[in-house]
Amino acid sequence: MTHDHLSDKIMRRAVALATAAGAAGEVPVAAIITDTEGQIIAEAVNAMEEMGQATAHAEMRVIQMAMVKTGIARLSDYDIWVTLEPCAMCAGAISHARLRRLYFGAYDPKGGAVEHGPCLFSQKTIHHQPEILGGIYERACAELLGKFFKEKRDSSA
Amino acid sequence: MTHDHLSDKIMRRAVALATAAGAAGEVPVAAIITDTEGQIIAEAVNAMEEMGQATAHAEMRVIQMAMVKTGIARLSDYDIWVTLEPCAMCAGAISHARLRRLYFGAYDPKGGAVEHGPCLFSQKTIHHQPEILGGIYERACAELLGKFFKEKRDSSA
Repeated sequence: MTHDHLSDKIMRRAVALATAAGAAGEVPVAAIITDTEGQIIAEAVNAMEEMGQATAHAEMRVIQMAMVKTGIARLSDYDIWVTLEPCAMCAGAISHARLRRLYFGAYDPKGGAVEHGPCLFSQKTIHHQPEILGGIYERACAELLGKFFKEKRDSSA
Repeated sequence: MTHDHLSDKIMRRAVALATAAGAAGEVPVAAIITDTEGQIIAEAVNAMEEMGQATAHAEMRVIQMAMVKTGIARLSDYDIWVTLEPCAMCAGAISHARLRRLYFGAYDPKGGAVEHGPCLFSQKTIHHQPEILGGIYERACAELLGKFFKEKRDSSA
């Protein structure tokens, strides 16, 4: 599979997962971890509502799942795909997990920590920096979030 | 109990937990969450070795435990005590959890994200900043870590 076809496949899957999470009342964000062949090893959605935990972001959950599944504490041969630019907590976790590549969809100027705010991977105290590709499937990922928050505002208006 | 006596009690407990974790082969860091009365709600040590997870820092674990125990997703009425300055992942989690105060022991110029590196709580994209008191029981917390890493170096030399 070419890289473009792989990106399409994984990000379409991530958008579908995020959409389902949004329908269940979660902020619609999903994350997937693949191996070097592009096989999906673990996938998770934001589950802050379901789990009642403010730290249950999709990235934290999928990293923990992948470590349990592979039995490996450092995921150097794995890539993470996220529908939204990770926050500081999740970017820190991606660094600790030593993930090879970070692909993300929508940019998050308000809470993102990769291209915004602390730009965490540019900090000297961050000991591992993945290759980073942002803006993949950006429109679909961003529209999903925009629609979710608009509906939330409309329903509480 | 005066605040000083409370600090003594909690930090002594945290140092004891961290010491035990170090004896079990973990990097000796411990975290405790207390309520406004100073009662301990949850306590955890760094468990990266035991759990095989690079993200199993004491702070992440104790925050998740406290949320499960209290059933509350935002811990605005709780304080966190850590033997070491939190990293970016854990500082991000402390912000998401809305913890009221962060007390920590040793400073961590290499990996800390509170007073070092991204100085996360000063970033505009971090939406909650706890009150911060660093350097409590600093010497005991730092000596513990120094001793652990020295023994590790000596045993692999």
